[in-house]
Amino acid sequence: MNQLYRIRVESHAPNIQLHDMASVNAKDRFLQLFPRLCKVAMDYADELKLPQRQRDHLERSLSYNVMGGKMNRGLTVAAGLQSLRGDAVVSEEDLVLADVCGWGIEWLQAFFLVADDIMDQSVTRRGQPCWYRLEGVGNVAINDAFILEALIYRFFRVFFKDHPARLHLIDLFQDVTLKTEMGQLTDLTTQVLGQPIDWSRYTLDTYKTIVKYKTSYYSFYLPVACSMIIGGITSEEAFEVAEKICLAMGEYFQIQDDFLDCYGDPEVIGKIGTDIEDGKCCWLVVQALNRADEAGIQTIKTHYGTNNHESVEVIKKLYAELNIKKIFEDYEDACYVEINRMIDEQQVLPKAIFVDLLAKIFKRQK
Amino acid sequence: MNQLYRIRVESHAPNIQLHDMASVNAKDRFLQLFPRLCKVAMDYADELKLPQRQRDHLERSLSYNVMGGKMNRGLTVAAGLQSLRGDAVVSEEDLVLADVCGWGIEWLQAFFLVADDIMDQSVTRRGQPCWYRLEGVGNVAINDAFILEALIYRFFRVFFKDHPARLHLIDLFQDVTLKTEMGQLTDLTTQVLGQPIDWSRYTLDTYKTIVKYKTSYYSFYLPVACSMIIGGITSEEAFEVAEKICLAMGEYFQIQDDFLDCYGDPEVIGKIGTDIEDGKCCWLVVQALNRADEAGIQTIKTHYGTNNHESVEVIKKLYAELNIKKIFEDYEDACYVEINRMIDEQQVLPKAIFVDLLAKIFKRQK
Ligand SMILES: [Mg+2]
Ligand SMILES: [Mg+2]
Ligand SMILES: [Mg+2]
Ligand SMILES: [Mg+2]
Ligand SMILES: [Mg+2]
Ligand SMILES: [Mg+2]
Repeated sequence: MNQLYRIRVESHAPNIQLHDMASVNAKDRFLQLFPRLCKVAMDYADELKLPQRQRDHLERSLSYNVMGGKMNRGLTVAAGLQSLRGDAVVSEEDLVLADVCGWGIEWLQAFFLVADDIMDQSVTRRGQPCWYRLEGVGNVAINDAFILEALIYRFFRVFFKDHPARLHLIDLFQDVTLKTEMGQLTDLTTQVLGQPIDWSRYTLDTYKTIVKYKTSYYSFYLPVACSMIIGGITSEEAFEVAEKICLAMGEYFQIQDDFLDCYGDPEVIGKIGTDIEDGKCCWLVVQALNRADEAGIQTIKTHYGTNNHESVEVIKKLYAELNIKKIFEDYEDACYVEINRMIDEQQVLPKAIFVDLLAKIFKRQK
Repeated sequence: MNQLYRIRVESHAPNIQLHDMASVNAKDRFLQLFPRLCKVAMDYADELKLPQRQRDHLERSLSYNVMGGKMNRGLTVAAGLQSLRGDAVVSEEDLVLADVCGWGIEWLQAFFLVADDIMDQSVTRRGQPCWYRLEGVGNVAINDAFILEALIYRFFRVFFKDHPARLHLIDLFQDVTLKTEMGQLTDLTTQVLGQPIDWSRYTLDTYKTIVKYKTSYYSFYLPVACSMIIGGITSEEAFEVAEKICLAMGEYFQIQDDFLDCYGDPEVIGKIGTDIEDGKCCWLVVQALNRADEAGIQTIKTHYGTNNHESVEVIKKLYAELNIKKIFEDYEDACYVEINRMIDEQQVLPKAIFVDLLAKIFKRQK
């Protein structure tokens, strides 16, 4: 069993993008925790005396679904804790707790993604077939997703035991989970499946609601709030400040994601964007709908969400006419100024925790 | 909004089976909490400023999926708390907490059932179409199931707030949830979908593992353990004793369920059993496989899991030849003696909490 995990961890190592030695060590340390968490899961299955078939299925699900992403969310917890402590050394114990939370976020994401792929009937995820499409999986993937989520709280029990912050941590994870599910609900039901797109629903308001709940809370606020909890922060005001800044960063991050889907270099981002073909409610089309004249809106209605090369080119040409690229660049600059203003304005948290996070995403190319 | 809940509650009231005035009041009190919990959920959606479409979808999911069962599990929490207290009066506050836990179990079951129906591709549930089969739902039902589960912890936060037992309660619910998911995994992967039944896997051992984790923990141990937590019990030994007795009752309950599926009166149980047609790994077929000769096993292999009337009759005839009915009745009597022995043997909990529960299921006809 450990054999497998060792191989998985090593096979991912060459993909690590290194910036400096500190982050090498942080990523190594983070990766080394993965087999320990898998062992906690498998020990639980052993305790229940699950038959070998089921243990094999579970083990396969864990290594297939949790690993393979960029792990930015997971790594942010320990990094954030270090920012909070400033020059003071963070204890080994606290780093482990931070990484357990970090993996909890990665596990939570795996839970969302396994289920999202079924709901969207997607074909591939992270360059390999979606879990539910594998032989011997199918709809069992729904229950596998449940198990991924439930294991998070098992990890907290094992690693946090009687830690005074465990309840706060559980409350945080559960609340963010519910918010993400509410965001997913909004995303899934904004359009009616199988019916033509109702363009009146692609508003900036709806876009922002979906991004806030479906992405920003678990991707930005959750890791930062975990750092704060492990760092011993209890002030409600501090959590509110962090929430506000993290949600602003999350929105900026998703808008970048939408921009890169259309304008990014596929070689660099690692995939070919298909938001236009898929008819996604992305920031670009919302901007275009707000700025186009009668004829432009007609062009969108005719060509957006159509899976052919010519239609994609028509939409890209309309984006060019409407200066969407420039509008994004102006937005990005204004957004950077605004987030920095929010960071400077507050006095309850060290600026570094936000500044470091913003530096990682500002003007990102991938 | 409250209008809807009031209608739902009233429309279910005529189905209540009443034994005495105490249980009438208990059931009324329990039902009256339902609209309050729905309001907590809808207030949360309002707080998030979810668009009206999504609020409507959520509200529809709650009233469709949580209500409509017998609510035995939910009602057991307050009943158990009363048994624990003996002649002492249980405070109104504690009854509300017990009912919140009881609804938590009903909500948890709704989460499991909505997902189970998708995984089993079922058509009806509780006499109406499965949720995922409704217009405008489909695979969104997966996320609706997630939301049903997540709301449980929202209720605990609202009603238990700083109650000293909240963490214990969360740990209990999460552990039982994970066990149920492990049971579901075992059930789903014992046979390979679309392949002929592998009869060597229909063993009593596998049957017991599935029943224990998929049914007994959440149906018997969970309500009793909730009563104990609200009753202020902290002794680990007491929880272990309760677990052992509740698991024995859960196994007995499921074996009854399997028996009634074949031998019960459809008028009384409210549905026509289809375990034989469905090829279910039920207690009867496991017993038959263990007792049949070469020819009998061949009969099972040919006719079990086949959706035609003649095959069902062939299997029922084999059951009759093997005296399966008598074997069940002997099992039932022995089981009753054994569970009572377990109840008498222990000194840590009032016998009433188990005796009352056992009385509700012993020799049940539905
Ligand atoms: Mg998707
Ligand atoms: Mg999706
Ligand atoms: Mg994208
Ligand atoms: Mg089913
Ligand atoms: Mg099932
Ligand atoms: Mg049955």
